[in-house]
Amino acid sequence: MAELIGNLLVAQSGGPTSVINASLAGVIQEAGHHEGIEEIYGGANGIFGILNEDLIDINEEKARTIQGLRYTPAAALGTCRYKIDFKKQPEKAAQDMDRLFQVFEAHNIRYFFYIGGNDSQDTSHKIHEEAAKRSYNLRVVGVPKTIDNDLPHTDNCPGYGSVIKYSATTVMEVGIDVGSMATDDGSCCIIEVMGRSAGWIAAGTVLAKRGNPANPPHIILVPEIQYDVDAVLAKIKETVEAYRYCVMVVGEGIKNKQGEEIGADKNHVDAFGHPVLAGAAEVIKKYVQGKLNTKTRTVLLGYAQRAAEHCASLADSANAFACGEAAVRAAILGQSGSMVKIVRTLQPDGSVKWSTGLQPLTDIANVEHFVPRDWISEDGFLPNEKFVEYARPLIEGEVKFPVEAGLPKYVVLDKSKVEKKLPPRS
Amino acid sequence: MAELIGNLLVAQSGGPTSVINASLAGVIQEAGHHEGIEEIYGGANGIFGILNEDLIDINEEKARTIQGLRYTPAAALGTCRYKIDFKKQPEKAAQDMDRLFQVFEAHNIRYFFYIGGNDSQDTSHKIHEEAAKRSYNLRVVGVPKTIDNDLPHTDNCPGYGSVIKYSATTVMEVGIDVGSMATDDGSCCIIEVMGRSAGWIAAGTVLAKRGNPANPPHIILVPEIQYDVDAVLAKIKETVEAYRYCVMVVGEGIKNKQGEEIGADKNHVDAFGHPVLAGAAEVIKKYVQGKLNTKTRTVLLGYAQRAAEHCASLADSANAFACGEAAVRAAILGQSGSMVKIVRTLQPDGSVKWSTGLQPLTDIANVEHFVPRDWISEDGFLPNEKFVEYARPLIEGEVKFPVEAGLPKYVVLDKSKVEKKLPPRS
Repeated sequence: MAELIGNLLVAQSGGPTSVINASLAGVIQEAGHHEGIEEIYGGANGIFGILNEDLIDINEEKARTIQGLRYTPAAALGTCRYKIDFKKQPEKAAQDMDRLFQVFEAHNIRYFFYIGGNDSQDTSHKIHEEAAKRSYNLRVVGVPKTIDNDLPHTDNCPGYGSVIKYSATTVMEVGIDVGSMATDDGSCCIIEVMGRSAGWIAAGTVLAKRGNPANPPHIILVPEIQYDVDAVLAKIKETVEAYRYCVMVVGEGIKNKQGEEIGADKNHVDAFGHPVLAGAAEVIKKYVQGKLNTKTRTVLLGYAQRAAEHCASLADSANAFACGEAAVRAAILGQSGSMVKIVRTLQPDGSVKWSTGLQPLTDIANVEHFVPRDWISEDGFLPNEKFVEYARPLIEGEVKFPVEAGLPKYVVLDKSKVEKKLPPRS
Repeated sequence: MAELIGNLLVAQSGGPTSVINASLAGVIQEAGHHEGIEEIYGGANGIFGILNEDLIDINEEKARTIQGLRYTPAAALGTCRYKIDFKKQPEKAAQDMDRLFQVFEAHNIRYFFYIGGNDSQDTSHKIHEEAAKRSYNLRVVGVPKTIDNDLPHTDNCPGYGSVIKYSATTVMEVGIDVGSMATDDGSCCIIEVMGRSAGWIAAGTVLAKRGNPANPPHIILVPEIQYDVDAVLAKIKETVEAYRYCVMVVGEGIKNKQGEEIGADKNHVDAFGHPVLAGAAEVIKKYVQGKLNTKTRTVLLGYAQRAAEHCASLADSANAFACGEAAVRAAILGQSGSMVKIVRTLQPDGSVKWSTGLQPLTDIANVEHFVPRDWISEDGFLPNEKFVEYARPLIEGEVKFPVEAGLPKYVVLDKSKVEKKLPPRS
């Protein structure tokens, strides 16, 4: 494979995570080792900014700042939810694609890395195909990212280990709190976590049990299963009778027996047309207070769970960084049209060794990976030992960060702008 | 003052905090230094358990466990919300008081320490007065505790520093996340924190700004001020126009222009007859989405904020421990009928030195301490420099805790029961 000389463009997409910047740091630091890569540019707010030719000159950033990305949450370059949708808006999509390649050509972009989840890998795939069609010499490698952990073929998705480390810690702490307040009447606490259609995050909080059935969380509901609400209430009642309290975790997209989302707000849809979910925990709280007369409180972790760098997993952060590095190495070696994946190898001593591999983007784009049914108990109320074995290595180790005046000291990019060469987008 | 020889009883009351067990450790470890104190008992679930003669033999616990209380959240002895209410239920209150002194006599309790907030200090005060009336030689010293920070005369309440360290960290992390997603349309995130009538917790998240007006949180609403909802919406709109996003923190008990609680759920009341609050953030979210058409998400920290030992303040934890120690020392010297308070001394180098003092319980019981009006900006939307100067030292330092398999390893008391000597409570 002949050496391809030109500039690199990296961008971030979709919901941020605690470790999406670690992947960015991996791309940038690895790129610095290869002479074929001349300039390193960042796309501001993903495709959205690239279409506006909003590029950031990464080589103007301090090395200390790049290093600090390894412990800084959220998307340092900015992110977006922007889909190039050839099915629904073919004309606009074609215009976007033209514009994108104008930007690539104007800035001699030869390496493109998009850090994101399902929708973003779909975008990467389209750009890769388009480059071939246009005979534009471009190497596109996707870098996985999503707290939802729903990308196929990769052992796990960077961001997931950290969100479950934080969520399991929180569920454990809330559990001790609620347990210590237990009185004769009993009480219930429902914690809602993210996860639209895959229950990976909710399931991950099972780690807070640390193998003890009496420990919270006592019940975990995932979107993969359709629940009979009366059966859920009966399970809560049984738990309160046994322990005098019940801690339940619900994924935001959990469904009733009819397959309807329990917390759906039909009045709002997001940029992709999915209805906005908010309030599965609140809905169930109303049932519990009304039908069981058990005092119930809710916790809605929301954005806090995916931004909680202060409780991020070192294993996850290291994998995120490694994915960034691996993407650049693969592209340098001539790869295009693949996504980096994380590979787990079980060591003889029972520990896990992480490495990376590559998977064609055709296998990734728009495929959702769900929690296997046989990783959840028969009654659907708790992940089982198979799940625990899978999830436990993902939360190992703590990401270190500097502290100033009692608060984490995260870094911010200077974001020196690359001079625009094109007329504004029409 | 003649030496008083007998047994010690310590109990915890009200909502738990990250550091209420540090106070318990302070009481226990200090008690070990005084020969006048023979046995050390813990009341299970506060007054509620003591009335049932549910006492725990602390001297049966491992020293390692007692040390571990310094980094273990929630109430290790168990807690309760139980009020001896002579006004509303005089007959039951008199019976309770009789029973309490039967338990004290049966177990030769001569030192009583109640770790709690306003209601608990009121209980301590009544027990102190009752002992005098009965000529029962008992020394009662209150140990302050409440994340609400609303006890008077003490510089701050143990539990408060930790809850604002965690909440400010969370607001900062959520702020960076939301800011990194900003698009042309703008977005809003509303984070709801605890604080029924005092806005200390909400106000404390101002530390996340770290002196930069552009940093989140952009707006903080406290229960002390009655807000014109239209003015709040105008402020959100102005903020989104300026920064393309807005992060707002609200205390659960915030009020509208008419003085009504915005998030009140009139269908439920707690054990003290206060209506249960849930949903100030959700109510305002509906206004923002409806009237401003700005995408809005909420975070409801709930119990997570007061249990978040993994992000507790060392200054707070050390003060909590010191309050427990000071209570025992005061009682040994003959004190009764006071609460330990925290005293701040500003050092010449600008740092703060913490010490303890005593305040008569008559000055404490049922008095609520609010955020001073002149510590909040004129428009009521942000705490000012005076507040920041007060709050900053409270979040200094991090509490260290052991980690096992990626999760904090907190301790649990063995709770060896003291043999009952009385017939069951009638």
